[in-house]
Formats: sequence, C-alpha cells, structure tokens
Amino acid sequence: MSEHEKYMAQALLLAREAMDEGEVPVGCVIVRNGEIVGKGRNRREVGKNALAHAELEAINEACERLGGWRLPGCVMYVTLEPCPMCAGAVINARIEHAVIALPDAKSGSLGSVINLNSYPLNHKVKLTYGVLKDEAKEYMQSFFGSLRVKLKAHNNR
Amino acid sequence: MSEHEKYMAQALLLAREAMDEGEVPVGCVIVRNGEIVGKGRNRREVGKNALAHAELEAINEACERLGGWRLPGCVMYVTLEPCPMCAGAVINARIEHAVIALPDAKSGSLGSVINLNSYPLNHKVKLTYGVLKDEAKEYMQSFFGSLRVKLKAHNNR
Repeated sequence: MSEHEKYMAQALLLAREAMDEGEVPVGCVIVRNGEIVGKGRNRREVGKNALAHAELEAINEACERLGGWRLPGCVMYVTLEPCPMCAGAVINARIEHAVIALPDAKSGSLGSVINLNSYPLNHKVKLTYGVLKDEAKEYMQSFFGSLRVKLKAHNNR
Repeated sequence: MSEHEKYMAQALLLAREAMDEGEVPVGCVIVRNGEIVGKGRNRREVGKNALAHAELEAINEACERLGGWRLPGCVMYVTLEPCPMCAGAVINARIEHAVIALPDAKSGSLGSVINLNSYPLNHKVKLTYGVLKDEAKEYMQSFFGSLRVKLKAHNNR
C-alpha cells in the first residue's frame, strides 16, 4: 500500500462512519510530515449545519492544532472532490496538495463543474485524483443505492 | 434609511470591530423575517483559522439558531463580496438573497473574479450590490492605508 493509499484508507474509514449515520459518505484527513493533523467527515444532516462538510471539519482541526490559518506543507486526502465552499477553504488555508479519490460531477470545484485552480486566486493547489477510487465509488453507490430502495419503499406505502 | 441600509449598517459595525482588532474589516449579518439570526466578523488572524471569515461565522450561527442546514427566506448582508469559500457556503445553505456593499476584485466569487451563480450548482442566490458602499470603501481604505503606513515605518527602521 502506497503512502497515498494509506492515508486515503483513513479518509475512507471516516466516510464509512458518515454513511453509518445516514450521511453522504465523505471523509477527509490532513497530513503533515507523516502525521495526521486534522480529520473530518460529512455530518451535515446530524449536525444540522451547512458548513459541516468533511473538509471544513478537517481544516478547522488542523488550524487549531498547528496554530495558524495557513497550512503549508499539508496534504489533504478526501474521498470526493470538494464543493466550491470546501475547495475555496483549501485555497484559503494554502493547502499544498489535495489527493482526491473520486471526481464529483454535481458540484466538484477542482476540475469537474468548476476549476478554482484556473482562476487568479491567492493560491493553486496541486492535485492527484483516483487514489482508492474503486473503494470510494463503492461507498457512494452503496449509499445512494440504499437511499433509492428506501425512497421506493416510502413511495409504495 | 432603507431596510437594506439598516442591516448593512449592522454589518458595518461588525466590520469596524474586526478592524479594531487588526483584521481586514468585513462584517456580516443574516436576517430572517426582520430578525437578525446570525452575525459574524472576520477574525482570521486573531482566531488563527482559515475558516474564520465573517460569512461562515454568520451562517454557522444561523444554522444553530434555526436548527437546520438550509436557511430559506434568509437574507445575508455583507460588507465585501464573498470569496469562493464563503460564496460556496451561501449556496450550500440556500441563502435566498445576498446584499453586498463592495465588490472584491481580488477574490470575489459572486461576479468579480468568479461568478458561482453562472455554474449549474444546486442553488442560485439573488444579488444586490452597492448598499452603503461608500462607508464600506472608507473602512477598507482606512485599513489598508494604515497598513501601508505601518509597513513603511517597519521598512524604514
């Protein structure tokens, strides 16, 4: 297992926790010098908060831990391509490198729907796609598949 | 004083508080049915956190107060055009209307550098620009003017 896969596996564990709570399964860890300095998972429904995405939770923890708003030398591992809010936070925090399992055709903002890297902002983030993408895809399909079964059962009542 | 000006004046008071603490002066309030349900001011330096922008603080408070991640019927008043992170949060929270004093040519993401409304995302936010723009501009000029004086004094030491 490569270094990237090792940390993405940690992000997938957090995605799994999110799914077990009925959330869209997204997990994220931030690593600096081989140490995990921030973790997060999607908890928008449970937390009843529009900001409670995995990436924001992880950035918040990393800023607290490292004591500053800049996160130089940090690598983010996230199971799904960040939305505009989270991709903007990655840029605001000056995260060096984002390793992403799956692209997001619905609101992905580091290449899919929007590419924030293509605009003249303060920072550009290095990107790596596809690490453990099959595992991440399986979670998404499992989540949305069971959601469809539930909705169908609901509609047939 | 119009309704919009009344609430933007509240946002400007928060921008003033930010400036007094040495932060870029940005303030924000969120209003629903004539009641302020969220407030925030930029405190990125003091809070040592990349997420501590005025808009995110206000959205966080409004979600807690209203008990959900969606903020329908809410109007945001903010003294400076939101960055990608904050504009993304406005869309994620389904804020109905953003009233903005000043555009931001550096990272404004509701029309200036990027226009998130032009992408096929989940939500489009109604926009009004220019409310109390002279007052907001004065704060920005005062902040960046005194910063230049300080930097010059520092460089001449």
